[in-house]
Amino acid sequence: MRAALARRSVMTKIWVNSGDSHVMEPADVWTARLSARLGARAPRSERGEKYEMLYIDGERIDRQLGDFMDAMRPPGAWDLKVRLKDLDQEGVWSQLAFPSMGFWLVSITDRELARETVRAWNDWAHEEILSKNKRVITTACVSTADIDDAVAEVERVAELGFKAIFLPCSTRPGEEYALDRWEPLWTAVERAGLVLGFHIGTGAQNVVFRGPGGAVVNYMETTYPGMRVVSHMVAGGALDRHPDLRILIAEGGAGWVPAIGDRMDEAYRQHGMFVRPKLSRLPSEIIRQQVYASFQHDKSSVEIVESTGYRNVMWGDDYPHLEGTYGHTQSTLHDLFDGVSDDIRERVTRGTFNELFGLPDQTPQEAAV
Amino acid sequence: MRAALARRSVMTKIWVNSGDSHVMEPADVWTARLSARLGARAPRSERGEKYEMLYIDGERIDRQLGDFMDAMRPPGAWDLKVRLKDLDQEGVWSQLAFPSMGFWLVSITDRELARETVRAWNDWAHEEILSKNKRVITTACVSTADIDDAVAEVERVAELGFKAIFLPCSTRPGEEYALDRWEPLWTAVERAGLVLGFHIGTGAQNVVFRGPGGAVVNYMETTYPGMRVVSHMVAGGALDRHPDLRILIAEGGAGWVPAIGDRMDEAYRQHGMFVRPKLSRLPSEIIRQQVYASFQHDKSSVEIVESTGYRNVMWGDDYPHLEGTYGHTQSTLHDLFDGVSDDIRERVTRGTFNELFGLPDQTPQEAAV
Repeated sequence: MRAALARRSVMTKIWVNSGDSHVMEPADVWTARLSARLGARAPRSERGEKYEMLYIDGERIDRQLGDFMDAMRPPGAWDLKVRLKDLDQEGVWSQLAFPSMGFWLVSITDRELARETVRAWNDWAHEEILSKNKRVITTACVSTADIDDAVAEVERVAELGFKAIFLPCSTRPGEEYALDRWEPLWTAVERAGLVLGFHIGTGAQNVVFRGPGGAVVNYMETTYPGMRVVSHMVAGGALDRHPDLRILIAEGGAGWVPAIGDRMDEAYRQHGMFVRPKLSRLPSEIIRQQVYASFQHDKSSVEIVESTGYRNVMWGDDYPHLEGTYGHTQSTLHDLFDGVSDDIRERVTRGTFNELFGLPDQTPQEAAV
Repeated sequence: MRAALARRSVMTKIWVNSGDSHVMEPADVWTARLSARLGARAPRSERGEKYEMLYIDGERIDRQLGDFMDAMRPPGAWDLKVRLKDLDQEGVWSQLAFPSMGFWLVSITDRELARETVRAWNDWAHEEILSKNKRVITTACVSTADIDDAVAEVERVAELGFKAIFLPCSTRPGEEYALDRWEPLWTAVERAGLVLGFHIGTGAQNVVFRGPGGAVVNYMETTYPGMRVVSHMVAGGALDRHPDLRILIAEGGAGWVPAIGDRMDEAYRQHGMFVRPKLSRLPSEIIRQQVYASFQHDKSSVEIVESTGYRNVMWGDDYPHLEGTYGHTQSTLHDLFDGVSDDIRERVTRGTFNELFGLPDQTPQEAAV
């Protein structure tokens, strides 16, 4: 167990990068950029008495209000300039930023609608975020309805300067990530040098249990699909065939990663006669080389770095969400890192992020905005 | 990372206890003890050309042959006397032993059939295993069809000297472990001082994905229900209401336990306004006090003991299964424990087991069979 050192540096600001945050899109992100015909089918949200109604291509999904969306939002949630002030206050230098409403694009199965809505989202993110600052770097969206369209969009957004692609943790049945369906996308993402960011809680309904302890049980239920992504990408052979492809499981914690590497090694060795495809490396080796994970508060995510040697651990603030650290970032960082070696603190707070996103390993003092 | 010490003690036999193994029931375990009417509906297995057919109360479940059941079996799989010689050879002193065919009893929904088949199984285990030796201690089965019957059987088997109850990791929909349905059973098990042993891969179909990497993916799929048990037993409040109730997740690894404790703490704190019931302790504290886990080969299960302070880790040999260590137990133990502190080696190989099952912390040299 980490030595419980006195809080010797409680007043010292720890500057960090965040491997997980979100941008909040304006309501007209699609209607302003698409024809009326397509814009009408793009995701939109309406508030009812008890529910938020999400409309996507004619389908309606009801989400209970009082859920998480009305919970505390930091001042900069919808405004990049204010957001950068929030980040300065919190001590967060750079952020990978996932979508919010954009997450729903992965549920679109109509080829044209998927292609045009992700393109519009990426154009918005490029114009309003990426091209206006160097600290908040958004992932790009791609079609999950058609892989050729996804490949074309990967090539386009790589040109625009995106560094990562968002994909959902849960897929439609028959489209699991171990399947050949995705192979051209893996090739394109590897060739473009982008990171594949799978975000927890995406691609499927998150409320699966409504009994006692449901809030905690359902939070756990979002974790398993992140683990499932790793098992499919490793065991199916995608990461072995594409050794330069790096994947990030965002917001699901990192302490479980070595454990599932061991579980997969055990299956690979002990059930060897049933294993297809054969891999050139053990699952745990592939994971150490190509699988990254981000967390917010989990002490075990830091504790396992030294003991297991799994170093692809990245802190994240999950700004502006309720699961995140806005308002208590510095106390969380001190709880996590006081008494931890410089090497591991640097790796988890900045090094892993900079390795993935190609930013220089710089402090705010060293860098210009 | 654990120092890669020279194998200084490769010739030293490490004596261990095993928190996970299985007994193989004779084909007539039910027919010999039940009326013809009930015996005909009890689980039985038939070999076809390509499939094993399992018949349970009129239902038929086909399992692909060449699966795991024809894989290497140690000599003592079906014979207690030979088994003890196998254990001597492997360096395993004592074993918790789960059922094999008995696992299928949890799928029975008919009240009488469930009650009588578990009773017959427990009588067989008591007569043929428990009363004949002190080293192989079987779990008892209970009805999952009726909780009053389960409570009565818990009281009966506690009298017979059983130390643990087997329950499946997956439940029928609407019978999840967070629900009040189970409360009388938790009370009875706590009062009797028994351990609740949830075994990985039970209560549901294990083959969920048939694409590339399926053998490894499906092995991972058996892990999530073990995590789900912990989330339901903790978040639903059962472990908090029954502070002397201890649960074991057997065969699923232990390296992930601190990580899911942290995940649950994050949900409990950050989504506090939505959390019901409130708990008197944080989920991670409940886990440290009442949740145990067993593993076979996973290095991370040992590595996390010191770094996270989670000490309820127990090694297991999974005898006589293919995922187990028969034939390579000593080399596995040396790989896992050479270079590890005496404290942690003792805890994981014997201390945790003895804490759960009330056996004196003795070596074979100190103990009489």
